Amino acid sequence: MNIVLPDGTVKEVQEGATVADVAASIGAGLAKAAIAGKINGDLVDLNTQVAADAKVEIITAKSPEALGILRHSCAHIMAEAVQELYPGAQIAFGPETADGFFYDFGLSDSISSDDFQKIEAKMAEIIAADEPFVREVVSREQAKEIFANQKFKAEHIDDLPEGEEISIYRHGSFVDLCSGPHIPSAGVIGAFKLMKVAGAYWKGDANNEQLQRVYGTAFFKKKELAEYLTNLEEAEKRDHRKLGRELGIYMMDDMAGVGLPMYLPAGARVIRLLQEWLRRELYRRGYDEVITPHIYKADVWKTSGHYGYYHDNMYFFQINEGDEEEPRYSEYGVKPMNCPGHVMLYKNAIHSYREMPIRFFEFGTVYRHELSGAVHGLMRARGFTQDDAHVFCREDQVVDEVCAILDLADNIMGEFGFEYTAEISTRPEKSIGTDDMWEKAESFLRQAIERRGIPYEINPGDGAFYGPKIDIKVKDAIGRWWQCSTVQVDFNLPERFDISYRTADNSEERPWMLHRALFGSIERFLGILIEHTTGNLPLWLAPTQVVIIPIADRHLDAANEIARKLQQVEGRVSVYQQNEPMRVKIAKAQAQKVPFMLVIGDKEVEENTVSVRTREEGDKGSMSVDEFVSIIEGARIL
Amino acid sequence: MNIVLPDGTVKEVQEGATVADVAASIGAGLAKAAIAGKINGDLVDLNTQVAADAKVEIITAKSPEALGILRHSCAHIMAEAVQELYPGAQIAFGPETADGFFYDFGLSDSISSDDFQKIEAKMAEIIAADEPFVREVVSREQAKEIFANQKFKAEHIDDLPEGEEISIYRHGSFVDLCSGPHIPSAGVIGAFKLMKVAGAYWKGDANNEQLQRVYGTAFFKKKELAEYLTNLEEAEKRDHRKLGRELGIYMMDDMAGVGLPMYLPAGARVIRLLQEWLRRELYRRGYDEVITPHIYKADVWKTSGHYGYYHDNMYFFQINEGDEEEPRYSEYGVKPMNCPGHVMLYKNAIHSYREMPIRFFEFGTVYRHELSGAVHGLMRARGFTQDDAHVFCREDQVVDEVCAILDLADNIMGEFGFEYTAEISTRPEKSIGTDDMWEKAESFLRQAIERRGIPYEINPGDGAFYGPKIDIKVKDAIGRWWQCSTVQVDFNLPERFDISYRTADNSEERPWMLHRALFGSIERFLGILIEHTTGNLPLWLAPTQVVIIPIADRHLDAANEIARKLQQVEGRVSVYQQNEPMRVKIAKAQAQKVPFMLVIGDKEVEENTVSVRTREEGDKGSMSVDEFVSIIEGARIL
Repeated sequence: MNIVLPDGTVKEVQEGATVADVAASIGAGLAKAAIAGKINGDLVDLNTQVAADAKVEIITAKSPEALGILRHSCAHIMAEAVQELYPGAQIAFGPETADGFFYDFGLSDSISSDDFQKIEAKMAEIIAADEPFVREVVSREQAKEIFANQKFKAEHIDDLPEGEEISIYRHGSFVDLCSGPHIPSAGVIGAFKLMKVAGAYWKGDANNEQLQRVYGTAFFKKKELAEYLTNLEEAEKRDHRKLGRELGIYMMDDMAGVGLPMYLPAGARVIRLLQEWLRRELYRRGYDEVITPHIYKADVWKTSGHYGYYHDNMYFFQINEGDEEEPRYSEYGVKPMNCPGHVMLYKNAIHSYREMPIRFFEFGTVYRHELSGAVHGLMRARGFTQDDAHVFCREDQVVDEVCAILDLADNIMGEFGFEYTAEISTRPEKSIGTDDMWEKAESFLRQAIERRGIPYEINPGDGAFYGPKIDIKVKDAIGRWWQCSTVQVDFNLPERFDISYRTADNSEERPWMLHRALFGSIERFLGILIEHTTGNLPLWLAPTQVVIIPIADRHLDAANEIARKLQQVEGRVSVYQQNEPMRVKIAKAQAQKVPFMLVIGDKEVEENTVSVRTREEGDKGSMSVDEFVSIIEGARIL
Repeated sequence: MNIVLPDGTVKEVQEGATVADVAASIGAGLAKAAIAGKINGDLVDLNTQVAADAKVEIITAKSPEALGILRHSCAHIMAEAVQELYPGAQIAFGPETADGFFYDFGLSDSISSDDFQKIEAKMAEIIAADEPFVREVVSREQAKEIFANQKFKAEHIDDLPEGEEISIYRHGSFVDLCSGPHIPSAGVIGAFKLMKVAGAYWKGDANNEQLQRVYGTAFFKKKELAEYLTNLEEAEKRDHRKLGRELGIYMMDDMAGVGLPMYLPAGARVIRLLQEWLRRELYRRGYDEVITPHIYKADVWKTSGHYGYYHDNMYFFQINEGDEEEPRYSEYGVKPMNCPGHVMLYKNAIHSYREMPIRFFEFGTVYRHELSGAVHGLMRARGFTQDDAHVFCREDQVVDEVCAILDLADNIMGEFGFEYTAEISTRPEKSIGTDDMWEKAESFLRQAIERRGIPYEINPGDGAFYGPKIDIKVKDAIGRWWQCSTVQVDFNLPERFDISYRTADNSEERPWMLHRALFGSIERFLGILIEHTTGNLPLWLAPTQVVIIPIADRHLDAANEIARKLQQVEGRVSVYQQNEPMRVKIAKAQAQKVPFMLVIGDKEVEENTVSVRTREEGDKGSMSVDEFVSIIEGARIL
């Protein structure tokens, strides 16, 4: 019979051939590398028989699906080990996750990380035995019998819809209710590690029994695990929540609320510097700043459409416009976006085609509902400040405007040393506007991005309902990608707010409207920047740029005088005058990630120099005071 | 019998003597000047008899109560005129107001300002006749009979409590239900004018009949009326709402909400410049900027006390921390003040006595409920940005800190050419804290203000419940006083949030906390500044500093080159390149209150000069480009 390979070639195989046979028929190397297969797009075990004319793909360690299968199998092996070590353990669910796997257990004993070694040793034994994973299809009755002593599995069997195929996987003495697929045998797992244990509820419902969820990860190669652990450690070291606390960037307070960071002096400094730097760039590029309120009447959100489509992400409240005796309530909403305000400001005056483009920007703090479980430091908060702008322009200006935005994005990402890539998201199924408008808009975005030679991918159907968009993702120092800038065409708001401009022949035309944010959320960008730089912010952005350390009290006047000179060029300086050993002071400045430490002693006072240390390179020798002042002056942004 | 005069002297007068007799017994001049009297603190007519041992004061035109009495009498005269001109007119209430009087009429005819001349002529006739105001005390039955044809008066008689004395005032043929007092006769009114007519409801209730309210004003002297009208005209010309619209400062939109200004580019520029200028001053003075959210959990407001004491001025809403099926609501409030946030930031770390004072500042946008009838442009809005700061310090630092704040206030007021005075408000009846704390705090404020030699008054009992304060009022160019800066001691929040610092002997001490705002509300300060300067903001603050006007197209390149040079020194420049006559361009720049207009023609291009016009003085002759650039560079704040 014939089957079809991914490259479209047709291959003849024997009736009853398995995926493994197909792999072998292609080559011995592939046969050895194969760990699973795909038949007509569905993942299957290697020993699954293929049907005539099926599309067959061989899954090897290099396939994107491979790691998930391996980890799912490793979850079974962990459950097997736990069952052997904790007789009577009740097993619940054990899937793979984005970076590993977990299994939920009902146990009278409590598992802690102290037990990991014991469990890992048992798992290593099982893996060394290299027994196969064996799939069986069973009847509902058989399944009930097999899992008679496993209450979660038994309950789940009852929940399965009538007529659904029920499969189990056996591995050694272990058996699990599972639809698979799995690796052919345990030995495929090259490396694994248990990571942590946490509480979880059966089927995620807080009314159900509490279980112990043991997390782990697994790889094909030991080297991959080692790399993963190093990256994890690196990411932990860079965690902006930890550094944010250590560097005095921000704090959170349960009493104050969920997902509402409060910025300490160092954090507020950096945020203001980012804003001031960008403000200046924006003025130079023909933008006008505007300021809009944080609350609006619900009428605004009804007109914009947010009231209907975004209601659950917004915070609404009532204002009593009457008095206590005769209340007259008016509904208001905290703004989740700045767009409607900017459209109203546009509409405040009659605009001529000659004035276009009109570019409004605002550092607008918005509030959006996030589940309390989803909030994460500065990366995902309920309140954040967008470097938001809206460009209103004529159709013949769209491509140039998008190019200008891309140039600015390039400028910003370059400033922070971020690599980036772009994605164009096109028309989704549910969307407003004509085909003609979408085609034009998508083509404008493509023209702009191509004119600027930025590498991009197309995300078909991933645009907003109101128009296509370009998203820019940046790559940080440890290879993680972060969504930052966005440029979006909006067909919706100009229509809903009925805005226009006067053309050369004095008729009314609807302007094009572009949303764009470059940092995205300024606070989130700061979070990314902290993780990217491990808190070593560039000189121009460091909250404290220079720490001056007088060796003895008699050097304090000179230290203060140097501080004064640096402050005159807007330097951010701190003189460490406490009575502490120099190495303690240096360690403190180092921990605060201060770019420069200046040590002042007799020699320096006499020669009018400073002994310079940098946070990255330590001692850099001495330099004249003026020379050093000019370094700091060079980092001045205003 | 004896009576007592205001200076405490005892005077013998005849039994049955009136206030007028008392005045005459003191002197002929006073007898002539007298218009009313005060017996034991109550205002009375001049012909009221005094009783033995009464304290008697003579009211003349110079007394603070005089103008109100005159205007109340003038309201009667207006009603008399209206009744003569509109037979059957139903009269309601007619009191004096802060700057004049009004009377409400029920009329089938509609009164418009076109009718004012006719009514004023009739009033002038009545005043010229100089008939006396005559008081009578009547029984309820008599009153009902007198006002049988006046339904509002009749209804009001029914509303009067049993046993209350009912008095009427007759003037010529006119009679009104009124408790007085009045001027002796109409001729005392030196000048009057009707101002406007508006709708009003009987007894202010929208369910009642609608009436016509005619407003007027009156003075003892014609000169006073003329001055009042000139000031009114001047104030109208300076009205920041009118100028705000003309200069593109801000807009309001009914759809967006009540009392929520939205800032257009020129307004946003000025607000940012004010902030950046102040931020720099604050950094120089040892302040640290912080940024706090606009919403907090109700727990914060409960801890701070705002939840109980300030609830009706705040906007609260619910956040669902659960899901649709199992909602779990948490109450949040939009911040009306920044203080609790700053206290929480203080509490984030352990502080040593050596670190004090700690000074946190924030440009914090707050939202407070105001009745929709009370909002007024930028002067009274529901959302505004405080230049807010809180100083946490040791007791021995309070006086120095208050001095430093007063210095900064002096600096700011000087920058804008405002005269100012100060008031210290002391312990009110309802207040927290010990006598000792209040005495200390009041004495610290007094010491600071005296050390700085600022003239001040004491407002006894007008402090906040949480501590005494200094308020600073500024005087604008047309003599109006505006409350701006404030320095307040707070005994409440340090206690409620239980904050402390470590003393030299390592014990815990409660820090002193000072609230202070200098602009107060930045937007309101901008409003005051616009009215003070008639929109002619100082060069460093003008949204556009320079307009360049090329005479012909061939001068455009040179104009753009000069613009570029000015932008390099952060100048805010606009090149007027439209095809319009020069006088039109100059008129436009003048209307936009742009400080400098540069005219560029052949001669200027050749000689590398600019022809300079200023908004205040017109043509100033020519100047080299470099010289002009240095003027603009001199106005750079950053």
